[in-house]
Amino acid sequence: MAHRFLPRLPRTIHTPIRTASPRPHHCRHYSSPQSARSQAALSSLRIQKTQSPSPPPDAGQLQFGRAFTDHIFTFEWTTEHGWTNPQITPYGKMPLDPAACVLHYAFTCFEGMKAYKDPQGNARLFRPQKNLQRLNRSAARLALPTFDEESMLDLLARYVELEKGFIPPLPGYSLYLRPTLMGTEASISVSRPRSALLYVIASPMGNYFAGGMKAVSLQATRSPVRAWPGGVGEFKVGGNYAPSIVPQEDAAAAGFQQNLWLLADSEGDEYVTEAGTMNLFVVWVNPDTGRTELVTPPLDGTILPGVTRTSILELARERLSKEGMDISERSITMKELANASREGRLSEVFGAGTAVVVSPVRSIQWNDQTIDCGLKKDEEAGPVSLKVKKWIEEIQYGLVDHPWSYRV
Amino acid sequence: MAHRFLPRLPRTIHTPIRTASPRPHHCRHYSSPQSARSQAALSSLRIQKTQSPSPPPDAGQLQFGRAFTDHIFTFEWTTEHGWTNPQITPYGKMPLDPAACVLHYAFTCFEGMKAYKDPQGNARLFRPQKNLQRLNRSAARLALPTFDEESMLDLLARYVELEKGFIPPLPGYSLYLRPTLMGTEASISVSRPRSALLYVIASPMGNYFAGGMKAVSLQATRSPVRAWPGGVGEFKVGGNYAPSIVPQEDAAAAGFQQNLWLLADSEGDEYVTEAGTMNLFVVWVNPDTGRTELVTPPLDGTILPGVTRTSILELARERLSKEGMDISERSITMKELANASREGRLSEVFGAGTAVVVSPVRSIQWNDQTIDCGLKKDEEAGPVSLKVKKWIEEIQYGLVDHPWSYRV
Repeated sequence: MAHRFLPRLPRTIHTPIRTASPRPHHCRHYSSPQSARSQAALSSLRIQKTQSPSPPPDAGQLQFGRAFTDHIFTFEWTTEHGWTNPQITPYGKMPLDPAACVLHYAFTCFEGMKAYKDPQGNARLFRPQKNLQRLNRSAARLALPTFDEESMLDLLARYVELEKGFIPPLPGYSLYLRPTLMGTEASISVSRPRSALLYVIASPMGNYFAGGMKAVSLQATRSPVRAWPGGVGEFKVGGNYAPSIVPQEDAAAAGFQQNLWLLADSEGDEYVTEAGTMNLFVVWVNPDTGRTELVTPPLDGTILPGVTRTSILELARERLSKEGMDISERSITMKELANASREGRLSEVFGAGTAVVVSPVRSIQWNDQTIDCGLKKDEEAGPVSLKVKKWIEEIQYGLVDHPWSYRV
Repeated sequence: MAHRFLPRLPRTIHTPIRTASPRPHHCRHYSSPQSARSQAALSSLRIQKTQSPSPPPDAGQLQFGRAFTDHIFTFEWTTEHGWTNPQITPYGKMPLDPAACVLHYAFTCFEGMKAYKDPQGNARLFRPQKNLQRLNRSAARLALPTFDEESMLDLLARYVELEKGFIPPLPGYSLYLRPTLMGTEASISVSRPRSALLYVIASPMGNYFAGGMKAVSLQATRSPVRAWPGGVGEFKVGGNYAPSIVPQEDAAAAGFQQNLWLLADSEGDEYVTEAGTMNLFVVWVNPDTGRTELVTPPLDGTILPGVTRTSILELARERLSKEGMDISERSITMKELANASREGRLSEVFGAGTAVVVSPVRSIQWNDQTIDCGLKKDEEAGPVSLKVKKWIEEIQYGLVDHPWSYRV
């Protein structure tokens, strides 16, 4: 019975079917009147600073995700009035009705992005427009209100400017920003929320690889299944995350740092989707072409369209293609990975995401097999991982001039 | 490309694979020490009544899901202290940290159940143990703490006793109860919550079919997909609900009351799963046996194990089998439904859930076809729907003596 609902995947893989732009169908509320309202709101931003400002954080004592900056940005929305009352106020608890629809039906979507400090002391964001676009796509999918992205970026920049003292001025350090958009209506009727709140909080973040990069080992997970075609795996919605904890703990208990989420087909082939909360990249010699190839699964509805993912693809197409590497978005089976490893064609596997940029993978446990991902024993990262990490960080920290870096 | 991930389903259908009991794998925290703690907590229930009690609600003016009773039941949990501090206090807003993990990662699961008033004025619950069992299964799947079900039922009964004045003493009226369990830890690290809150609120509910039953029309929805094998469709978790609004609005805009959620296989067969937030039942003449059959899809991981669903199956096996009807849990394809309708073998289709008990279906729109579900023009419900509705309501309202009715 276990095979009953397994999807069947063709062996021939086509090009990705989905762009990052919002699907008109889900974006009925993405209209210009809101944009005008939002812009009006921008000029009405009210800032109330804390009476007891914190000292700059101790870079050695950062508690990522548990310690936050002094302020919160909030922006209210109702069906009647649209977006109103943008505010920056002291960080503190929010009174929520026990019937607030976010608490029952998970009307919540979010973004993960970072503010970096450049050598001149300016705060910088990395392609923030991409995050705001994605938040709007997620919002529309969950029947939450969408917003004008340009105005929101201006508001976000004001918040980052106020909090930039919390960015430790050290290489690899940053201020993690968490925009969240949730339904707040006090109603347990299963329907479109009539009120919502967009807010942003920020948590100072250390250098993930302070002691140098460290390759991880993944456990391939066939069940539970993270995402499904026609599901919400391609949106950054809250509901995708809570179900990932138990499988992650299972992987950890077996000695692995993360799950490698698989999607199996009815013929037994298992396709790679994501690694933990990261997109996955593979560098191998393609057996058909004999050429080196950087490949990541396509945006077929089961893959989160990561900002780091698309940035790696764009940089690779611009810079690695010249060195003779092919850059591909297509499906990858576990069998292909195992074969490539056995035949000595697999040179690198790495996760890609906002938190770490890249996270090299040493091995993947797949049933009884340990797939060696090509790193040498004394190596923690392969040359492609190191290259793309360096390219992206140079842009993020404003060490090179690049249109992807947004100076606040 | 659209067919790429479609699952392939065998034509031969086996018996259901999953029981309603918690899977040991996901229930590591379901241990007796907690039960002991919970029982201790029961005796420490603190009740603080409102200073301004509401008058009994006007039965003609009920606002289901938007108006609540005077009190809320809360029960706190932390990794360090387990379950502590059970309280009944005046209904009011709850202060939540903006980093509370429920707001980001949808650490929330819930139940829907009702309290009924019997002719003697007692409050009654319908198989409340089933709801608490299911809440524990949902909690374990989301890495939320589980609880001792017996103690929780005692606590819930105390709450219902206090609020029973809000149950309008009229046939078909009830008090809807919403137990919710959510992660409250102020952390955006993607990990098991170290604190949680279980709470119960209650909303008086009118007679859904005050003017008599009214058959609905469904729109068959192949994409989006509500649930998939290895996903969380079989758990009552918040994340399953927000994504259902946009498809529901699409169905409504096309003139249908609900979606009929399909799961398609790679060969093009489309299987029926649920209708809106209800389980689905079909009454037809089985073409292989020539006998009348009551059939509902099996608990294969994509179906919520409804309390009404299992109650209908149990009553039907006990009472309708005698009348020569076969009772089956197995998959149903849209093609089978359409054929049965065309051949005059389809006599009834109905949804089943806590809110309405049964909701008869007049027709299903499937691509360009309108499938007539067997009701006569002047008929709003078929005989099987009416029978099971009557049987269940007699038990719920304490009109017959039955072990499924729990007197508070």
